Amino acid sequence: MQLWYSERHTPEVELSIKVDKQIFSGQSEFQRIDVFDSKEFGRFLALDGYMLPTERDEFIYHEMIVDVPMAVKPAAKSILVIGAGDGGVIRELVRYPTVGRIDVVEIDRLVMNVCIEHLPATACSFGDSRVSIFHEDGLKYIRRFENHYDLIIVDSTDPFGPGEGLFTKEFYGNCYKALKQDGILVNQHESPFYKEDAQAMQRMHTHIMSFFPETKVYQAHIPTYPSGHWLFGFASKKLHPVRDFNAETWNALGLKTKYYNTKLHVGAFALPTYVEDLLRDVG
Amino acid sequence: MQLWYSERHTPEVELSIKVDKQIFSGQSEFQRIDVFDSKEFGRFLALDGYMLPTERDEFIYHEMIVDVPMAVKPAAKSILVIGAGDGGVIRELVRYPTVGRIDVVEIDRLVMNVCIEHLPATACSFGDSRVSIFHEDGLKYIRRFENHYDLIIVDSTDPFGPGEGLFTKEFYGNCYKALKQDGILVNQHESPFYKEDAQAMQRMHTHIMSFFPETKVYQAHIPTYPSGHWLFGFASKKLHPVRDFNAETWNALGLKTKYYNTKLHVGAFALPTYVEDLLRDVG
Repeated sequence: MQLWYSERHTPEVELSIKVDKQIFSGQSEFQRIDVFDSKEFGRFLALDGYMLPTERDEFIYHEMIVDVPMAVKPAAKSILVIGAGDGGVIRELVRYPTVGRIDVVEIDRLVMNVCIEHLPATACSFGDSRVSIFHEDGLKYIRRFENHYDLIIVDSTDPFGPGEGLFTKEFYGNCYKALKQDGILVNQHESPFYKEDAQAMQRMHTHIMSFFPETKVYQAHIPTYPSGHWLFGFASKKLHPVRDFNAETWNALGLKTKYYNTKLHVGAFALPTYVEDLLRDVG
Repeated sequence: MQLWYSERHTPEVELSIKVDKQIFSGQSEFQRIDVFDSKEFGRFLALDGYMLPTERDEFIYHEMIVDVPMAVKPAAKSILVIGAGDGGVIRELVRYPTVGRIDVVEIDRLVMNVCIEHLPATACSFGDSRVSIFHEDGLKYIRRFENHYDLIIVDSTDPFGPGEGLFTKEFYGNCYKALKQDGILVNQHESPFYKEDAQAMQRMHTHIMSFFPETKVYQAHIPTYPSGHWLFGFASKKLHPVRDFNAETWNALGLKTKYYNTKLHVGAFALPTYVEDLLRDVG
């Protein structure tokens, strides 16, 4: 017997992964949830048929979405994470001794419970005393805050399905309001390569630019994501991700990483010309 | 009817691309040669069932293998290209007015002829007056030269099949000998992500390090290549790819590029920690 998991990255491109077995399959109020075991990528979660980063490459995604903003603002104390049901973002954040409070807003309680049971490598830090969990819609949650958070990380799925609201102009405006004066917003920013992903990226970038004076995009190699070329958005009221970044301060923390390092921090913001053009076209 | 081209990136990972039709299929003395048309990636060539960069993403590969060394040594006059049957490397090189002579060594005459006929977007510059073509084994060709070339670009297929000799220690030693005192060797360097590719990268790096005092690795996002995270090797007797690189000189050339730019030049050498570790483990 052979069992293959296949996912369309576009209607005409498909990535297939041989799996050993399906560990879980269920339907929450919001989405279909599946967990698979594979030899090549280890265990992985799929939401509505779209993989999240796997056991084998999740370190790339999670380090890049957490360590980049934390290295720009290592004194960040009050942090909001939206999405992140698999817990990878939380696992990275709790390594920073300076972090005081992590509010996690994950709309789907079942995703989190499935991850706690089946993905212990990422969902290992929800019990940290600094973590508070809210099973609410992030779009609604954020409305109530003003000048409150140092850092907001939006670890969303794609701009359709339950994460849709996290890509609206209203949401980014409320993130701006909820952030302190030197606060940072980081979000997964789709891919520049395939047309539909690139258009989503451009829409997102336009919305964010309409609120934040500093908006930059950085990149990473995430093999299981469409095209393998994935982007993150960095937005701030006043901090610049490279000029206001102090490599020595971050290195002094002594955190061990597998993807992120302070030289790569700078390099990740050096985008290919065609990506700069896509971002400029909306600017 | 649906027609899909599938390629195993590892025995347990497969990338599939919907194709409109097969344009060519033939067998040379060295390998099977296929050309396909697809909507998502345009036209592409496959050698022994492995895709070369497609019409849609070949600019990334070709700019990165040519513009990086040319920006470090813009005065390069005498250039050897090994492989490169699809002509993309030549197309990039002839844009530099300083280049005096381009010797192209492609073992497989049929590959080149098929590309001239079916891939005119890359195979468009073989007729340039500075280009000389040799249908020989690169491993044997290189033996006869000493202190002769400013730049050697090895645009090889994988370390098995007809390109195998271009991954041996003997070959790199002869490249060293054939290069002038400030010469540069650049080669495609496989991927760090999947185990077998990473091991090939490590072997290659060990061989090159045993001859060249300056050996660095740089990266690009190439969506159709395994994992999308592809590496190139930069080796020189004395030039450092970042310290000896002058962005202003290259920018003054006014060359239009879609991936490469001088900020990305520096960023491309900032490797993820796990890649640095893989390279250090062989050092």
